[in-house]
Amino acid sequence: MSFLYDRVALIGLGLIAGSMALAMREKGLAREIVGHARSAETRETALEIGLVDRVYAKASEAVVGADLIVLAVPVGAMGAVAEEIAPHLAAGATITDVGSVKQAVVTAVAPHVPQGVHFIPGHPLAGTEHSGPRAGFPSLFQNRWWLFTPSEGIDEDAVLRLETLVNRMGAKTERMDAAHHDLVLAVTSHTPHLIAYTMVGVADHLKRVTESQVVQYSAAGFRDFTRIAASDPTMWRDVFLQNKEAVLDILGRFTEELFVLQRAIRMGDGDHLFDYFTRTRAIRRGIIEAGQDTSAPDFGRSPGAETKS
Amino acid sequence: MSFLYDRVALIGLGLIAGSMALAMREKGLAREIVGHARSAETRETALEIGLVDRVYAKASEAVVGADLIVLAVPVGAMGAVAEEIAPHLAAGATITDVGSVKQAVVTAVAPHVPQGVHFIPGHPLAGTEHSGPRAGFPSLFQNRWWLFTPSEGIDEDAVLRLETLVNRMGAKTERMDAAHHDLVLAVTSHTPHLIAYTMVGVADHLKRVTESQVVQYSAAGFRDFTRIAASDPTMWRDVFLQNKEAVLDILGRFTEELFVLQRAIRMGDGDHLFDYFTRTRAIRRGIIEAGQDTSAPDFGRSPGAETKS
Repeated sequence: MSFLYDRVALIGLGLIAGSMALAMREKGLAREIVGHARSAETRETALEIGLVDRVYAKASEAVVGADLIVLAVPVGAMGAVAEEIAPHLAAGATITDVGSVKQAVVTAVAPHVPQGVHFIPGHPLAGTEHSGPRAGFPSLFQNRWWLFTPSEGIDEDAVLRLETLVNRMGAKTERMDAAHHDLVLAVTSHTPHLIAYTMVGVADHLKRVTESQVVQYSAAGFRDFTRIAASDPTMWRDVFLQNKEAVLDILGRFTEELFVLQRAIRMGDGDHLFDYFTRTRAIRRGIIEAGQDTSAPDFGRSPGAETKS
Repeated sequence: MSFLYDRVALIGLGLIAGSMALAMREKGLAREIVGHARSAETRETALEIGLVDRVYAKASEAVVGADLIVLAVPVGAMGAVAEEIAPHLAAGATITDVGSVKQAVVTAVAPHVPQGVHFIPGHPLAGTEHSGPRAGFPSLFQNRWWLFTPSEGIDEDAVLRLETLVNRMGAKTERMDAAHHDLVLAVTSHTPHLIAYTMVGVADHLKRVTESQVVQYSAAGFRDFTRIAASDPTMWRDVFLQNKEAVLDILGRFTEELFVLQRAIRMGDGDHLFDYFTRTRAIRRGIIEAGQDTSAPDFGRSPGAETKS
């Protein structure tokens, strides 16, 4: 059996790293998988459920002899981890990350990467509202995008090998500029998450209606928001701090738009609302046509999910 | 076979009325189902796919001889329809509606309801992003709430019969005050919908990133928003205009909260963001414990949906 990588070192053992480990094992992509997590409990769990062959209390020990190193820690911790492991990286090794922000990661990590080590920033567009080593599952990346933002002059063979790895885990790959990545993600993911967090926070303050009824009668809109707003707090704190500029840009545009709609409601301008809602409906059709979601009616979730609830 | 109602008249033949017709037929709840829609095309479709036994071009003709009349038109059209059908309602008949707003419907409809006819406002918390007579399916109400806001002094037998009907269609029932209903729904459904519409509109304006990439890389947050923002424009225009007070109240609170988070991002206040996101995570747990959603990881949709996309 020929493996794509001999030894993969996962730095951080949460949802993404755990799912990578399970997917790599399932497809036989690496001879050996080792890992590091700051928490002793996480390390024990990762060993116990078989995510990794060995765990290390120090990241610098975990990377020794690895030909692929995956930084899977919150975006705000990437720089410190890179600095710690840098002197221990083998020549010719590839280092990648799975952070949701790319410019800040490049700025924090790249200066520490030694000559002869290939740094290829990456971002799998996959996740769930759960976190921790037990949250992983091998099909997480199935049919999902995995974006890479390699710098110019990077070793093409190293990039192709890494792309092959994630392709075999089920993901589709694309390369783009880091700044462009951050703006696209600010629109499609970061700002929607902040808005969902906000709306759930508003409901929490409204004690007179929330105690049980907001939860009990939680319909389409709000229920989807609570799912988004249940995502890992540390990860998302770092995303907003590290993609500050693009998120503030999009938030400013969002507030302007919202005020225009709010004014239309206050003034009773039904034509404005109707035209706006008709335009947004068309974008949804684009997403279905792009194969990023199905047209099956889903506000009520699938019948299977319903009977379980 | 004993039916709960002899003749049900559906005024409006969209997603909700269509699903009611299919559910009533499947469970044998009405001897005869007739309908009215303004559009000739909708009437023909409803007949063709067997939603109703007969259709009428005039609402006033459809209600003759009916012992249950369901107003399933946009909230803004309820008053005019009630006025038109009022002289033709049989004594002892029950009239209900399925509007997402209750106070405005009561104000618009109640004055027209003749003595001896039981008006029981209702709202099924069910729907999908699709609309029209072909969008209906009989399991739409399965395990969903159907809220009623009957006024004091209403005939208890009439309410029980109507509750039995929707129970047999699979729904759970609850009674509450109309004003309370409107506030709860402003939090759980109306404001989240407006926010989703707004976010999708923002993306639409950002042509430099949207053309294909926002759609192509549409991740968790945004994809859920587009689904919500694909809902029927006429229905939602009316919801916002008819529940103006509660929606503007919640929107004001939302904007305040959002500005506080936006400021925390700008100032780099990570502790504030982390604490906020930790609180919102707890609400999600409440929803799962209340049985309103499952804890199955779902940001990636179910594997079945994924392979279809």
